[in-house]
Amino acid sequence: MGLIVQKFGGSSVRDRDRIFNVARIVANTHKAGNDVVVVVSAQGDTTDDLIAKAAEITHDPSSREMDQLLASGEQISIALLSMALNSIGCHAVSLTGWQAGFQTDRKYSKARIRRVDTERIQSELERNRVVVVAGFQGLNKLDDITTLGRGGSDTSAVAIAAALKADRCQIYTDVEGVYTADPRKVPSARKLDEITFDEMLELATLGAQVLNNRSVELAKKYNVELEVLSSLNPVPGTVVKEVTNDMEGMLIKGVAKDADVSVITVMDVPNVPGSSFKMFSLLAQRNINVDIILQSTGRNGNKDVTFTCAQGDAELACRVLKEQGRYDNLVADNSCAKVSIVGAGMQSHSGVASSMFEALSNNHINIHMISTSEIKISVIIEEKDADLAVRAIHDMLVHNV
Amino acid sequence: MGLIVQKFGGSSVRDRDRIFNVARIVANTHKAGNDVVVVVSAQGDTTDDLIAKAAEITHDPSSREMDQLLASGEQISIALLSMALNSIGCHAVSLTGWQAGFQTDRKYSKARIRRVDTERIQSELERNRVVVVAGFQGLNKLDDITTLGRGGSDTSAVAIAAALKADRCQIYTDVEGVYTADPRKVPSARKLDEITFDEMLELATLGAQVLNNRSVELAKKYNVELEVLSSLNPVPGTVVKEVTNDMEGMLIKGVAKDADVSVITVMDVPNVPGSSFKMFSLLAQRNINVDIILQSTGRNGNKDVTFTCAQGDAELACRVLKEQGRYDNLVADNSCAKVSIVGAGMQSHSGVASSMFEALSNNHINIHMISTSEIKISVIIEEKDADLAVRAIHDMLVHNV
Repeated sequence: MGLIVQKFGGSSVRDRDRIFNVARIVANTHKAGNDVVVVVSAQGDTTDDLIAKAAEITHDPSSREMDQLLASGEQISIALLSMALNSIGCHAVSLTGWQAGFQTDRKYSKARIRRVDTERIQSELERNRVVVVAGFQGLNKLDDITTLGRGGSDTSAVAIAAALKADRCQIYTDVEGVYTADPRKVPSARKLDEITFDEMLELATLGAQVLNNRSVELAKKYNVELEVLSSLNPVPGTVVKEVTNDMEGMLIKGVAKDADVSVITVMDVPNVPGSSFKMFSLLAQRNINVDIILQSTGRNGNKDVTFTCAQGDAELACRVLKEQGRYDNLVADNSCAKVSIVGAGMQSHSGVASSMFEALSNNHINIHMISTSEIKISVIIEEKDADLAVRAIHDMLVHNV
Repeated sequence: MGLIVQKFGGSSVRDRDRIFNVARIVANTHKAGNDVVVVVSAQGDTTDDLIAKAAEITHDPSSREMDQLLASGEQISIALLSMALNSIGCHAVSLTGWQAGFQTDRKYSKARIRRVDTERIQSELERNRVVVVAGFQGLNKLDDITTLGRGGSDTSAVAIAAALKADRCQIYTDVEGVYTADPRKVPSARKLDEITFDEMLELATLGAQVLNNRSVELAKKYNVELEVLSSLNPVPGTVVKEVTNDMEGMLIKGVAKDADVSVITVMDVPNVPGSSFKMFSLLAQRNINVDIILQSTGRNGNKDVTFTCAQGDAELACRVLKEQGRYDNLVADNSCAKVSIVGAGMQSHSGVASSMFEALSNNHINIHMISTSEIKISVIIEEKDADLAVRAIHDMLVHNV
């Protein structure tokens, strides 16, 4: 009755049994009267195996050849899934990224989709076939194969859904949906029925790792309704959309922890206009993403600037600043973590922040930094306290509400 | 100084060491001042592994999806070889079959090349890059990936050489060239410096298994000089060309055995015009290739017709003929083999046939059928006698000349 895009990740197609499991989900969706486009990743460890093959040859492969190599992974999985679908009586045809019309920019290994020419997909749908598309890959203007980088298959699925104006884009994973906290760490965590794009973006950025950020941005931009659900357990998942129906008056949608945080403090920065700008433009030139920034008055009328970045960028950040001469009194701390609460209704309700701080205080957890936006509050605390903090905040603001 | 196409089979690129061995051969050819196009097959067992993956899914995969699946094999090997070439300082770029411009007909799994659009290859050569092309594959008019079937990479190499008017097409294998007989069976067998296309075609058909027949036919059609040589042992191989320089006056170029022979005798065929034609047109309709045909007068004024075909076709051939009603008195014999001598100079020299028969007679080997063409003589004998026959004929007509 509609047009549905379904995306399955590598673990969902890792072997024969999983492939047939996916085939049954797809065939049932098709049998129910829907047009179905399926986007799949490479099987299980295929991508890692291919990377290992390349590493045997050279430690510095050209990114063009890496893309040529890696794209073979999805070519295998689309062919196998199409065979499985055909064998259970559901007519299917597989299309590689370039056959499906994915046009990208030139950046090998992290290409951006420019557009999807859907002619071929549409003509196959008109013939009542399920179309099985290779995620993660496209073609640039040179007619070279490109790959989309991390989480690329999610992005492929949303891009197709947008181009085809699909009724829904279902992202099948090995979890049942988006949770209010990591269910492995917080026993009282519960699955959300709905979440807004903005909330999902904050949660994805904060390390909830359910959906890739680029795919959520794209879904928001083209208003593609997403559903995150399990390929193994056939229960309703979490719907991600522009405006949610908060019947329960749930203010907080999730509590997330991000342990990949380095806190860098630069002391004795001259207190003159432009000194912070110069510092952060130096970091930006080296593609270092800075997250939270705090500035305080230091000694001698100078100021102290503290910021956070990913731990992998910390060493480079310190080197870049030291080389400059003016910012050599600095210290980096990798023992911290960021804990955040996200919820679109937060801003219009007072007391959310104070409840969060109360939960931390009750558990004797010290707060190093605080950062707030319209729909989230983040604190930087010691990493050793982070799991306890998540549980305490979750129990106070989500579970017991 | 020229343009050279080099083709390497799956065993030549089966692992890291072999890939670098190939890379060194290619880089040296390029360093010597040549433009080089390399055609490679899938690594070692990759194709078999992919076939096994498909067999886990279904025993009747669509040939379109099989081609989509199998083509990933060469995509892996071209990327790895290009990485290896780049890592030793030889600039290379990999192209899949469709990127290299291979256009084929629609027959999945055994497509025929229609033409090669060499624009992309030529523009890469102009940039002084070695071009590494995926053999065995192309694109049909539907923009679907096709594969060329058995020996397809040889055919790809010759087709590129023809389209680019290359100076030479080198086919690297794990043998050093074309031998006068199978060196594993005939100790006195020697490597030929040169052989004509026609001789090579007869030898290939007869089971010498060095070069695929389609590639030799194509090379003859477009007069592409071929060289068969070893990727492991850097000695001159065998050149295949239109006219050879027979300084030694060598009449016989090779003695070959083909054990895949079924001899089918149909008795009591009505001796009226057109009865043989009807019989063989029935077989042709079922794509059964008939090799030697003999006809003799049988009983009651009827005739007996004997023919040979591949053993895999024998059962179908018998069934087709029996179904027809008129040809139900028949018998198939799979215990035979065909032994042949090939040489372009044979026809102008008397005594070749009688020497062959003498060699067989000396060894008490009975001849069931005889067939001759301008450049070959074949006999059908008991398979158990075949190796002895090859040695005896080789010693009399090749080794002791």
